[in-house]
Amino acid sequence: MSDFNLSTPPRPVVAIMTDFGLGESDVGVMKAVIIGIAPNAQIIDITHDIPPQNVSSGAWVLSYGYRFYPKGTVFICVVDPGVGSARNAIALHAGDWYFVGPDNGLFSYIYVQQIIHAAVVLTNTAFHLPQVSTTFHGRDIFAPVGAHLACGVALQELGSSLDPQALQRIDIGPPERHGSHIDAHILYVDTFGNLITNIPLSTVPDLFSSKHARILFLTNQVVVERRRRFFADGPKDNQPFIFGDSSGYVGIAVQDGSASRSLGVGSGAPITFDIGEE
Amino acid sequence: MSDFNLSTPPRPVVAIMTDFGLGESDVGVMKAVIIGIAPNAQIIDITHDIPPQNVSSGAWVLSYGYRFYPKGTVFICVVDPGVGSARNAIALHAGDWYFVGPDNGLFSYIYVQQIIHAAVVLTNTAFHLPQVSTTFHGRDIFAPVGAHLACGVALQELGSSLDPQALQRIDIGPPERHGSHIDAHILYVDTFGNLITNIPLSTVPDLFSSKHARILFLTNQVVVERRRRFFADGPKDNQPFIFGDSSGYVGIAVQDGSASRSLGVGSGAPITFDIGEE
Amino acid sequence: MSDFNLSTPPRPVVAIMTDFGLGESDVGVMKAVIIGIAPNAQIIDITHDIPPQNVSSGAWVLSYGYRFYPKGTVFICVVDPGVGSARNAIALHAGDWYFVGPDNGLFSYIYVQQIIHAAVVLTNTAFHLPQVSTTFHGRDIFAPVGAHLACGVALQELGSSLDPQALQRIDIGPPERHGSHIDAHILYVDTFGNLITNIPLSTVPDLFSSKHARILFLTNQVVVERRRRFFADGPKDNQPFIFGDSSGYVGIAVQDGSASRSLGVGSGAPITFDIGEE
Repeated sequence: MSDFNLSTPPRPVVAIMTDFGLGESDVGVMKAVIIGIAPNAQIIDITHDIPPQNVSSGAWVLSYGYRFYPKGTVFICVVDPGVGSARNAIALHAGDWYFVGPDNGLFSYIYVQQIIHAAVVLTNTAFHLPQVSTTFHGRDIFAPVGAHLACGVALQELGSSLDPQALQRIDIGPPERHGSHIDAHILYVDTFGNLITNIPLSTVPDLFSSKHARILFLTNQVVVERRRRFFADGPKDNQPFIFGDSSGYVGIAVQDGSASRSLGVGSGAPITFDIGEE
Repeated sequence: MSDFNLSTPPRPVVAIMTDFGLGESDVGVMKAVIIGIAPNAQIIDITHDIPPQNVSSGAWVLSYGYRFYPKGTVFICVVDPGVGSARNAIALHAGDWYFVGPDNGLFSYIYVQQIIHAAVVLTNTAFHLPQVSTTFHGRDIFAPVGAHLACGVALQELGSSLDPQALQRIDIGPPERHGSHIDAHILYVDTFGNLITNIPLSTVPDLFSSKHARILFLTNQVVVERRRRFFADGPKDNQPFIFGDSSGYVGIAVQDGSASRSLGVGSGAPITFDIGEE
Repeated sequence: MSDFNLSTPPRPVVAIMTDFGLGESDVGVMKAVIIGIAPNAQIIDITHDIPPQNVSSGAWVLSYGYRFYPKGTVFICVVDPGVGSARNAIALHAGDWYFVGPDNGLFSYIYVQQIIHAAVVLTNTAFHLPQVSTTFHGRDIFAPVGAHLACGVALQELGSSLDPQALQRIDIGPPERHGSHIDAHILYVDTFGNLITNIPLSTVPDLFSSKHARILFLTNQVVVERRRRFFADGPKDNQPFIFGDSSGYVGIAVQDGSASRSLGVGSGAPITFDIGEE
């Protein structure tokens, strides 16, 4: 080996998120197209289990993880109920990353969290596969465009420029806090059955210092008042507690169990959150 | 960095398809064996959710995606109910790709779609793991052989030559069209619940131009006559429609729903397809 | 290309095992952190479907596959019901590999199978993410520490040295054989429904040579006496048989079917095993 140069050549990172599942070969085919264009790419699966065609769920899952990816990562995101219709296919340079996918609101959180440096509609077919189907733009448009971006093709070459103000958005507003009261809902049930609310931890800096905190589930009138700083912080019982989830949102959990199952509550359930000194 | 040479070294591509699922560590162990032999390989998962020991389903899934993989890709495919018995372990050079797996018909579509340049029985144990179990040839034979192929070992070194005519085949014939009538069946239900038939789109070039098209499900007498060029091409209702799937076959779908569930039909269901001017 | 040096730079291998599932983005975020630190790493998923918070199941799954990974592989293992509590986060150099995870018994099999060269508590926060949550040490501590190890950071730099005798262990003892009798249980049900016992094949070298072998399921009094050297070794019926699993343990299977389902037996079920000449 002697003097062998250990510096690694730059390896572009491509991250993929879809609602395709892993039960079929679609995700593999997208990777095959990417590797054919960018043989040196590091491909990371964000997840492929977004509930089918659920754009708001996909937008949320993308939103709390992308910051951990290396600068320059190209995110190819396909939750695309309108595939084949008039909806635009787009690519963005936002913050330190690139995003490729349908213009249907999937990147709504990115728009409010990052500066959009540039956005284009993917009109330049030179960067698509030679044959484009009407049902699988993940393979035919988004994968090859993302791979070319990863190889250093300039965003502007991919198509015609788009005013960032014209990008489609879905309603993602965090709930407002009125003094000690917040009307909110369950955003997500995670693998362990933890209930993740749409209340950012930054909205409740007094989550653990205030005298009390109280979540009321409106559908079944269940109340949770116990708080824990971490999962094993207290007796190993089956009682639910409020905690600060690593996603940056308030959550409700049961130690060694599923809060969703034991409370009978799922994604979308409305709650009220009260916090304060009285 | 200065003058650093950015050309990437060639990275061999290895694609894996199994019926092992991802719930256990078997797929990981196969990759460990591959990386131990071919440290620079790009490994792509086709899928590991082929229905257990269902050779015809595996053959079909492999058949409609492999063309999208880079030339020279080594496909390691393990759907192998006869593991440990007298069935041959084989490797093939067919078209622009290599295929490694059991000789049980898993590559039947490849045989009719590509020229078989060479086939060998994997008799040279120098390219297997030192200890070969009777139950896990994916780890002990197919993974190491595939990795050596990916490293540039010649096919002929892997074992004794086999006459391509002697390769095992399963019945994969597409249905014949008699004028305006085709007897066919459902080949596959995809993640979204779309029903994919065994009718190649090339058999029905008049799918959208003909006056009418009509699919009859023989088991429950349900009829589907509506056609759509893409999913959002029409009102957002729950009515099923005929479409051209990206796999290259005729499909039946419901917008934002599962055609399989709403029609009560699954894989294998017999259909008749009528298309024409009357 | 001309004289281009084809020797590949060494690529560190990082293997990940968790109970996170692939339904969320947690595994992807861990990989993003790893690739950000070790851009050239080959990442292999062992599995992410360890039953939630089941440390003994995780320990077992890790134990029978790690030997197939290249020397120097860094294993990042996260089955961690005590995350955020006082349990230690550790890294080990054992045998030819490195292991990173919680000190809760997850590496118990490694301790008995390999020499532990060194163990450290991960007290050096310079190798963690800048912000460490109380609920996601996989992302904030284990992924970055594992990536730094893969890049060549010395184990000793990661924290304070720990006496290997002080490492937490779970009970993993194999059952004792008393002459021809073994009290044992089902350790695991694999993807195909095969029942894997906790009886090492090395305990029963006479598995196929002895006059008889007999497994009794204590819960339902079912008896299995048939033995097969491989799955297709005998008539294709639905009768269960005893075989030697590739994991190195005695198993019970049904050809082309699920032994777990047809016998009505799952993980943890107690059995007796009798083998001998009478």
